[in-house]
Amino acid sequence: MSSQAPHPSLLIPGPIEITDEVSQSMAHYAQSHVGQPFVNTFGETLTLLRGLFQTTNPGSQPFVIAGSGTLGWDLVAANLVEPGEDVLVLHTGYFGDSFADCLATYGAKPTQLKAPIGDRPQLPEIEAALKEKKYKAVTVTHVDTSTGVLFPIQPLSDLIRRVSPDTLLVVDGVCSVGGEELHFDKMSIDVALTASQKAIGCPPGLSIMMVSEKAMNVFQSRKSAPGSYYASFKNWLPIMQHYEAKKPSYFATPPTQLVQALHTSLKQVLSQPLESRFAQHRKVSLYVKSKVTSMGLKQLALDPANAANTMTAIYLPEGLTPPQILPKLMAKGVVFAGGLHREIAAKYIRFGHMGVSAMDESRGEIDKALEALKTGLAEVENAKK
Amino acid sequence: MSSQAPHPSLLIPGPIEITDEVSQSMAHYAQSHVGQPFVNTFGETLTLLRGLFQTTNPGSQPFVIAGSGTLGWDLVAANLVEPGEDVLVLHTGYFGDSFADCLATYGAKPTQLKAPIGDRPQLPEIEAALKEKKYKAVTVTHVDTSTGVLFPIQPLSDLIRRVSPDTLLVVDGVCSVGGEELHFDKMSIDVALTASQKAIGCPPGLSIMMVSEKAMNVFQSRKSAPGSYYASFKNWLPIMQHYEAKKPSYFATPPTQLVQALHTSLKQVLSQPLESRFAQHRKVSLYVKSKVTSMGLKQLALDPANAANTMTAIYLPEGLTPPQILPKLMAKGVVFAGGLHREIAAKYIRFGHMGVSAMDESRGEIDKALEALKTGLAEVENAKK
Repeated sequence: MSSQAPHPSLLIPGPIEITDEVSQSMAHYAQSHVGQPFVNTFGETLTLLRGLFQTTNPGSQPFVIAGSGTLGWDLVAANLVEPGEDVLVLHTGYFGDSFADCLATYGAKPTQLKAPIGDRPQLPEIEAALKEKKYKAVTVTHVDTSTGVLFPIQPLSDLIRRVSPDTLLVVDGVCSVGGEELHFDKMSIDVALTASQKAIGCPPGLSIMMVSEKAMNVFQSRKSAPGSYYASFKNWLPIMQHYEAKKPSYFATPPTQLVQALHTSLKQVLSQPLESRFAQHRKVSLYVKSKVTSMGLKQLALDPANAANTMTAIYLPEGLTPPQILPKLMAKGVVFAGGLHREIAAKYIRFGHMGVSAMDESRGEIDKALEALKTGLAEVENAKK
Repeated sequence: MSSQAPHPSLLIPGPIEITDEVSQSMAHYAQSHVGQPFVNTFGETLTLLRGLFQTTNPGSQPFVIAGSGTLGWDLVAANLVEPGEDVLVLHTGYFGDSFADCLATYGAKPTQLKAPIGDRPQLPEIEAALKEKKYKAVTVTHVDTSTGVLFPIQPLSDLIRRVSPDTLLVVDGVCSVGGEELHFDKMSIDVALTASQKAIGCPPGLSIMMVSEKAMNVFQSRKSAPGSYYASFKNWLPIMQHYEAKKPSYFATPPTQLVQALHTSLKQVLSQPLESRFAQHRKVSLYVKSKVTSMGLKQLALDPANAANTMTAIYLPEGLTPPQILPKLMAKGVVFAGGLHREIAAKYIRFGHMGVSAMDESRGEIDKALEALKTGLAEVENAKK
């Protein structure tokens, strides 16, 4: 039985349900951030992240910093790009626009490649863009939380390495890491950034990042100073290196309880092969998508090859809006999210199926959610008659 | 009886011991950051901060953002000061240097007024500095966590309002808010920034700030764009305003459990008059300082009027270093902190006596700590013989 108070099942694309063990870690007693017990936990957490991101290169550098996932964009924009440099932003929804805004804040020149809603920029146009000018970095949203569009990383990486090998590949994995295939080394990724509250299964409040040796060298050789203080690699790098070596170090007080919770969730995630975890997310996603289709509902993702395995963005029947259906789902004990993509926010809802809700079928949350959606829609239809 | 696992008493100058209710709030089940239950909690939390900071001006603007206390400096430097503008930094320890570094990162020109260790810059020299050039802001560390030096705010505020009324008064209250006298309106403060893990009694992970109407107007009329994305008032202001009006809003996912814990700790702090809370901190501090003196130990703060009520920085006997005494205290179930001020770090220790450890005498932690210090020092002395 769960030690958590009874509550509706949280099936939005993050934050997600957490396990009892993670919840208990959040209630950890107060610890000194420079005392050996916490230093050991933080150090192990950083090392566990190497496993999560699948990197064995000792030059890869993990970062865990108090903040929302958004902070990861500042870390990229303030440390890896210098003012005036060009960045190619591959846009598959809300989060492309925001990342571009963040890059521009620090003086970079973002160029966005956009696709129609539910689609993604295609490799030939990306290749043409890369040949047109020198880009310091390409950013891609692995899963855009606003649309549920997946961007497969390997073919993109192959293209970049062939056409513009020095260009940094920055993967926004906020809604993917822990649920979607991601191999930091094999896919030749330079930055993979994420947040604690999605497929990793920890509460929100941590910005998490893995940076390649190549990208750290780019940082070390930058001509201008980092454009941020709180989000400066210069300030955080020695701290992360010390903690991982189990030595105390201080720049800013880390969120000790959240780090305990991340340690617990990473242990749980890594207790079985990541491949089985990814496979289970694919299985659940296919199941959800087939059920949604059988209800006569369309998805935002135009093509199954574009569709995330961690979530599904679902168009509502014509004329129905999220405020009409979401309270009905809530009454059945299920929390879904409304739309987020500005142009169509009132036309769709989002269903997150990642982490423990996808991995532990005995919780029954996925079927409960699908049943709630089906009966909720029927109730709305009947009320119209 | 405490619901928390048995653990050594954490008596460093933050993080501090937390109550069982705060600990339980950290274990809150997962919630949607835009669902009404959490929106209500966050909104109430922002309103409670008006009480904590003692401001009744509806134009005062609270912010609560995922991050360490350090993030507060970026919020000030990126939003309230424009590149090239002068800022006067009153230095009473480590945190003055760091705030100055942060200001310079965003293009401001910090001028530091320094005092000998244990002292603080005096009003006449501050007045002279203010008359010499136009400062956009004066920053002051209310309690410098590295030295335990207190800077009384009212006389400083009176001086600034008399000599340079437009200059913004920025109070770094990381180690003071919730323990030391602070009246946002009465003291005519423009920014009071703090963190969750000190005298407020919440775990670390939240940057907390109150900004005056005047400072918000300064922000609104700035000529350049804010120098940060994650730390931009432009991005956060509508979010804070919506949440306080109990409406959902999204820029970056707030740390829902930490906000629950802050809500709980603020309710506890505000359950009695703040004046009694400040008085109890003064009483405990005087008690600690008299006991420390009776052990023959000197404090860093040169004058009782300079000494914080939330913590005490204590010189060790000649030849003794923190690594020799801290493990002895730990063996007695008490966690103190080592030195932090670069020049003398190996010569002193720090004792935090704030929050629940100071307020709830039945916990007995203060006497336990003093007894541990006394016997620990005696053991070291005896070992030398």
